[in-house]
Amino acid sequence: MSNPHYTELCRTWQRLYHYSHAASILGWDRNAMMPANGNGARAAAEAELQALMHRERTDPRLAEQLRAAEQEPLSDVERANLREMRREWRGANALPESLVQAKALAGAACEHAWRTQRAANDWRGFLDNFREVVRLSREEARLLAADSGLTRYDALMERYEPGVRAADIDRIFGEVKQWLPGLVARVQTNQRSEKVTAPIGPFPIDKQRALNQAVMTMLGFDFNGGRLDESAHPFTGGVPEDIRLTTRYREDDFVQSLMGTIHETGPARFEQQLPRAWLGQPVGVARSYGIHESQSLSFEMQLARGRPFTGLLEPLLREHLGNQPAFQPDNLHRLLTRVKPGFIRVNADEVTYPAHIILRYEIERSMIEGDIEPDDIPTLWDEKMQSLLGIDTRGNFKDGCLQDVHWSDGSFGYFPSYTLGAMIAAQWFSAMRRATPGLDACISAGNLAPVFEWLNNNVWSQASRWETPELVRRASGDVLNPVHFREHLEKRYLQIR
Amino acid sequence: MSNPHYTELCRTWQRLYHYSHAASILGWDRNAMMPANGNGARAAAEAELQALMHRERTDPRLAEQLRAAEQEPLSDVERANLREMRREWRGANALPESLVQAKALAGAACEHAWRTQRAANDWRGFLDNFREVVRLSREEARLLAADSGLTRYDALMERYEPGVRAADIDRIFGEVKQWLPGLVARVQTNQRSEKVTAPIGPFPIDKQRALNQAVMTMLGFDFNGGRLDESAHPFTGGVPEDIRLTTRYREDDFVQSLMGTIHETGPARFEQQLPRAWLGQPVGVARSYGIHESQSLSFEMQLARGRPFTGLLEPLLREHLGNQPAFQPDNLHRLLTRVKPGFIRVNADEVTYPAHIILRYEIERSMIEGDIEPDDIPTLWDEKMQSLLGIDTRGNFKDGCLQDVHWSDGSFGYFPSYTLGAMIAAQWFSAMRRATPGLDACISAGNLAPVFEWLNNNVWSQASRWETPELVRRASGDVLNPVHFREHLEKRYLQIR
Repeated sequence: MSNPHYTELCRTWQRLYHYSHAASILGWDRNAMMPANGNGARAAAEAELQALMHRERTDPRLAEQLRAAEQEPLSDVERANLREMRREWRGANALPESLVQAKALAGAACEHAWRTQRAANDWRGFLDNFREVVRLSREEARLLAADSGLTRYDALMERYEPGVRAADIDRIFGEVKQWLPGLVARVQTNQRSEKVTAPIGPFPIDKQRALNQAVMTMLGFDFNGGRLDESAHPFTGGVPEDIRLTTRYREDDFVQSLMGTIHETGPARFEQQLPRAWLGQPVGVARSYGIHESQSLSFEMQLARGRPFTGLLEPLLREHLGNQPAFQPDNLHRLLTRVKPGFIRVNADEVTYPAHIILRYEIERSMIEGDIEPDDIPTLWDEKMQSLLGIDTRGNFKDGCLQDVHWSDGSFGYFPSYTLGAMIAAQWFSAMRRATPGLDACISAGNLAPVFEWLNNNVWSQASRWETPELVRRASGDVLNPVHFREHLEKRYLQIR
Repeated sequence: MSNPHYTELCRTWQRLYHYSHAASILGWDRNAMMPANGNGARAAAEAELQALMHRERTDPRLAEQLRAAEQEPLSDVERANLREMRREWRGANALPESLVQAKALAGAACEHAWRTQRAANDWRGFLDNFREVVRLSREEARLLAADSGLTRYDALMERYEPGVRAADIDRIFGEVKQWLPGLVARVQTNQRSEKVTAPIGPFPIDKQRALNQAVMTMLGFDFNGGRLDESAHPFTGGVPEDIRLTTRYREDDFVQSLMGTIHETGPARFEQQLPRAWLGQPVGVARSYGIHESQSLSFEMQLARGRPFTGLLEPLLREHLGNQPAFQPDNLHRLLTRVKPGFIRVNADEVTYPAHIILRYEIERSMIEGDIEPDDIPTLWDEKMQSLLGIDTRGNFKDGCLQDVHWSDGSFGYFPSYTLGAMIAAQWFSAMRRATPGLDACISAGNLAPVFEWLNNNVWSQASRWETPELVRRASGDVLNPVHFREHLEKRYLQIR
């Protein structure tokens, strides 16, 4: 054996893979199955598994093994695997245990209080806890930056989007800010005269469930390697070999659950198509939050809300939910592409969504870098909402800067991935269209194979072989470039080709 | 701290409790939820957890810690906990790893082949694998006996029924053999003239599910700390804080699923009522297979198939399954107490069931002790089935000695617990009736509290504080005594009071 250290590292990560399998299934069960009183014992068991994995990742022998493995003869894939091992090792070892625990405690307390403070519009109360979360997050960023040689915000973002830098985000978001407000205004003007027929409920839950399963099957989800269940907050959980999707149902509205299911089916297929030979190792993991999100949005935004796909949805809607004028494909398409600036990020359409992210990115980056303080947030929030979306949020913390969970527990550096995902999805479909003439005609005819083949060949099969920017470049032939997203929006919402 | 070694041991077992929480939920999920293709990854994850727990239990420091803790000042409960720790430690350390692995492999191969060999009536084919399983099980028994000072069969039985010896079983089963064949014959004569109206299906699954949940609620099951789901082979899984029952449904027969659910609700309530302060330690675990079975049979046989309870079932059946003459309480009672000798243990009524167990006990004990060889089984099986139940099984291996899974993987010493459970359940109800005059009137009136209170005070709250014989003696005021079981059968089936 010519690479004993690398082999030993693989054994450690194989063990970690098995432990994290257990942790994933416990987490899915907690959200989708567990009765209320199971919580205490479950929390203790999950914490024990996390402690066990932390012990493995901070085993003092790993530092030397990683160094020694670098010198061993490795294939390209093995070297990528070693890079990902080191990333994970660095994440577990860069911070002193005392800081990790202090931040976890402060974040948990702040998040817990936030749940009631948000409803009470209590920004002052939130600030009391939040200042400590920010203080600890800045310390975390400082140490991670010192360890990695990155800037502080980059060091935080590296956790979510390996290889992407704030300089990239500045370039991309800077461009978007130039054209987005104008685009939103034009789309709204256009849509003012549109006639949209609304579906009429109720829609029984068991019919919606069957509809969702039928759509998932059409989208290639393998029910021999996964399930669809329900939870209060929909998510994609489980393990690549056994993917657990969840959605939630409302009797008066099938669109939310259907679109949510399609959204989760994207990353679910990514997981189901990860190279089997790499599973168990870090290189075999689906790449990054932004790439995961790009699959959600490839399925929901690029594919399912497009006019060709609504023609495929129609017969399924009629089969499961009965005959309604609203299910006519053109009407359905109009229904699924309404644009309206609003307060709430998670309810935003794809045109106004980036504005919500740009605003958060600018604020959190300045805050991590120490240019602003938590107290400054509401004023900045108001200014940016006004300039980007023309919305007045003054005094409305509930639907303003208190709306998201992310800051309450100190998940700084995460937000950009949402809009990166939207842009990357557009970039995938732009490349896919170049590679597949007549793609829309295929989709209209119910032939989705070209979509899945392109995604599989260029994205799914690559797992974590490349860092995010390199994966984007290799798959689409272009660096991260917002022009694809802009063209997509202009084509869909302004009929500009 | 005056007992540092004991405290350290408690910490180790607390960690094991958390790991086994994960293992339990993974096992439940595998049987109740997991799609087929999840199996490979799940098996690997479960094996990893088992290996982890085995490393903990075979940590060389434990031997000295256990010895030192014996010398520390401990309360009675702590001392019982230490006894159970030692039992578990002994179980993990008494056998060389090579033997454990060889037996696991041989057992898995034999069991796997048995699944098709049984259907094919292929006793010869089965023997080819089974001889090795027996050889390794004898070696196992020899080493366990040397380690514990017990006889070989006792050393195997100790795993399932702590403190019960073959001498006890000989005494009990010897008595039962005296009266059982005569009793079976008299009951059958009596029942020949009984008129029983059969329920008429189909019974939709969702109605059966609601019925089962209603009956579980009547039986005190706490749905905030557990669930009812479905699996091919019903079982009680999960953890005491979150009990996961399963059942299976047939549209044409609700009795199987209803009685199966009631059967599992017994041990489920045991688990739900274990003393919370002891959870996490071995003393807090539900005592033994026989005591677990005694709860299944307390609920199913003693309670639910009795005439007072069928009066409570009637309105629930009518509510969920509609109005049928068969649901009349007297008829229901006759339906649930039919006696008929048959080939198959798992289909046997409570009167003939012990015959199936006595036969298996006599054969497996002789085999472990080397008095007979695997080749001798069919002849002995035929003789005993003939003398105990008057049934001719010659040449019918499928419905004879090939019917059970237990021997195929070498689970020798397990079978007696089934009938011990039946006898102990009768002993509980005998003591309960002495302590609660008018118990049947209470049950008829829908007041089940005296049943649950007695079980809680005398059995559930004791967890593993006592070994099986001592628990029986303390709770019922009598040693393990088959007279209670005989009286129960004579009263129910011959109307002798």
